[in-house]
Amino acid sequence: MTDTTFDTLHNPTFLQACMRQATPHTPLWLMRQAGRYLPEYCATRAKAGSFMGLATNRDYATEVTLQPLERYPLDAAILFSDILTVPDAMGLGLSFAQGEGPRFASPIKTEADVAKLEVPDMAKLQYVFDAVSSIRKALTVDGKGRVPLIGFSGSPWTLACYMVEGKGSDDYRLVKTMLYSRPDLMHKMLAVNADAVAAYLNAQIDAGAQAVMIFDSWGGVLADGAFQSFSLAYTARVLAQLKRNGTDGKVVPRIVFTKGGGQWLKDMQALDCEVLGLDWTVNLAQARALVGGTENDPGKALQGNIDPNVLFAPPAAIQMEVAKVLDSFGKPYQGTGAGPSHIFNLGHGISQYTPPENVAALVEAVHSHSRKMRL
Amino acid sequence: MTDTTFDTLHNPTFLQACMRQATPHTPLWLMRQAGRYLPEYCATRAKAGSFMGLATNRDYATEVTLQPLERYPLDAAILFSDILTVPDAMGLGLSFAQGEGPRFASPIKTEADVAKLEVPDMAKLQYVFDAVSSIRKALTVDGKGRVPLIGFSGSPWTLACYMVEGKGSDDYRLVKTMLYSRPDLMHKMLAVNADAVAAYLNAQIDAGAQAVMIFDSWGGVLADGAFQSFSLAYTARVLAQLKRNGTDGKVVPRIVFTKGGGQWLKDMQALDCEVLGLDWTVNLAQARALVGGTENDPGKALQGNIDPNVLFAPPAAIQMEVAKVLDSFGKPYQGTGAGPSHIFNLGHGISQYTPPENVAALVEAVHSHSRKMRL
Repeated sequence: MTDTTFDTLHNPTFLQACMRQATPHTPLWLMRQAGRYLPEYCATRAKAGSFMGLATNRDYATEVTLQPLERYPLDAAILFSDILTVPDAMGLGLSFAQGEGPRFASPIKTEADVAKLEVPDMAKLQYVFDAVSSIRKALTVDGKGRVPLIGFSGSPWTLACYMVEGKGSDDYRLVKTMLYSRPDLMHKMLAVNADAVAAYLNAQIDAGAQAVMIFDSWGGVLADGAFQSFSLAYTARVLAQLKRNGTDGKVVPRIVFTKGGGQWLKDMQALDCEVLGLDWTVNLAQARALVGGTENDPGKALQGNIDPNVLFAPPAAIQMEVAKVLDSFGKPYQGTGAGPSHIFNLGHGISQYTPPENVAALVEAVHSHSRKMRL
Repeated sequence: MTDTTFDTLHNPTFLQACMRQATPHTPLWLMRQAGRYLPEYCATRAKAGSFMGLATNRDYATEVTLQPLERYPLDAAILFSDILTVPDAMGLGLSFAQGEGPRFASPIKTEADVAKLEVPDMAKLQYVFDAVSSIRKALTVDGKGRVPLIGFSGSPWTLACYMVEGKGSDDYRLVKTMLYSRPDLMHKMLAVNADAVAAYLNAQIDAGAQAVMIFDSWGGVLADGAFQSFSLAYTARVLAQLKRNGTDGKVVPRIVFTKGGGQWLKDMQALDCEVLGLDWTVNLAQARALVGGTENDPGKALQGNIDPNVLFAPPAAIQMEVAKVLDSFGKPYQGTGAGPSHIFNLGHGISQYTPPENVAALVEAVHSHSRKMRL
């Protein structure tokens, strides 16, 4: 039986909201919260020598994962890693040139490249699972976790984008050329990716991840129709394989975030997951009405969705924009069962140029305004 | 009185579809149809020395505008120019470095910069109006136009993005910092931009533009709420000032295209324009149901929306994807009044890497499949 109580945590609000349970405030965390906007992160990264040096070292990964929690009363931690670790383990050779973003040494170009792809030996990703265990230990105070730890992966489609393009792209020409010219090859790659992502997330769950998130960062670049066939279907294939509980018997909620996917919420409602992430273009009130459910009707918890650029405004403006987002969702369910719930987040990863003191203003505004909304 | 017949054209299908009138096939044109994918365009550009050398010379602009019409039976011509001519005329100093996209020498940084902005003297844009007249003349055969000529401008918000960022951006940090920190300055800039764009489009109409299009290329990067206040409201301000007729008394349809605006179609329905452009993420059947109207109910004509990357697939795949887009819209209105209509286009500008022979396959597929749909 799945246990949907979270008594092993000092602050269970994030997991409670994932399960559409009532919370005293709207929990929040920030995508990429352990990142370059924090000077202490940059210091650790300098010690590690490179991004992959940081991500592959359990102690460094633990250190940077906890850094934002020392500064801000965030309601969840997220594993410090990258969405592209899986294709790296497949042998594509991931590297991060300074200021350039990820790059694969051996991108997928030909039918033969696709034929060679297989679910990698999870032992190659042991450094990730070691980091998960280490972070869980570091989060434990007086026998309980301070906040839950979120594990994650890129979606099958998002991984395929990088695997074919070899790096970020502004037109996705290579991957879409394959999609439209050789849909058979694309489906083959996506099936391998989906099974690899499922194995990867299950191993994170076994290592102690208390929720898992699938980042479909590039789902929104697909045409209507292609999104459903080439992204959503393979996210569903991942979800179908995921473990429902951690080794402690506690439920492990699953979050799916398709950047640019606001038009497809009705399609995403059918996903076997608890939470849908939303970017800042989505109207939260409409999203709640569409897929948030009611007390009697199952629905998705919604996560998001302030524009990260709001963090470049002064605190008074940040407070106003935070209130707009919270008020747009409206008062969450307050009963003892399950109903509409909201997890506050950015609509995308935090910018490296963000002033850290503005993040403090945001966190304070979310907690205080959302407490007032419940009165 | 506005004349909504188009007897001065050999091929009036585009304007008829803009006015939701029946046509024997679905008319099409391609955003950026006069562009680098055509070797003859590259040859003319080489003669002109630079992009601005091309755009500011009436004869070159006429030559490249007509080039795609010589190759393909397209149903409309679009003025060869750039969306950033207006801020250039405001004194920001537009240039195009080879392979780098547009750049302004003097971007808007301070309150003083904004205070100095004003609607430019349209005489500075005379080269554009001269090009419009010249193209109209070149399109005339036996006293009638071969196809109509579309004029265009960037939207007030899209211009503001470039004016503040100084160039393309992947996070819009500078312009959004101003938006969230100093909304008063942003509103001031947008008001000037809107009035300038209106004057610019009216002068294009006087010079002979038979339809006008507002490219809100960056509206989709705004948060819900911000889009309505900072983009849509100023597009509406442009539309409110536009002339309804050309000097010949013919109606001049107005097209608004917000890339990434699929979630806001209901908001855009209120715009005083005839046509809404859609990118490839939008489901055409849903868009038609939402804003396409019926025979008895006014609605918008819809323009779009195939993914330009489809043009990298072989002709058989192109035909299949064209049929999907046409079938998704469904059979257009066939009566003698006004009803739902579709103008085929890409969901974004054509890629410079597109094989020209694939464009021929696309054009043929649109015309032949859409004729069959009407049987």
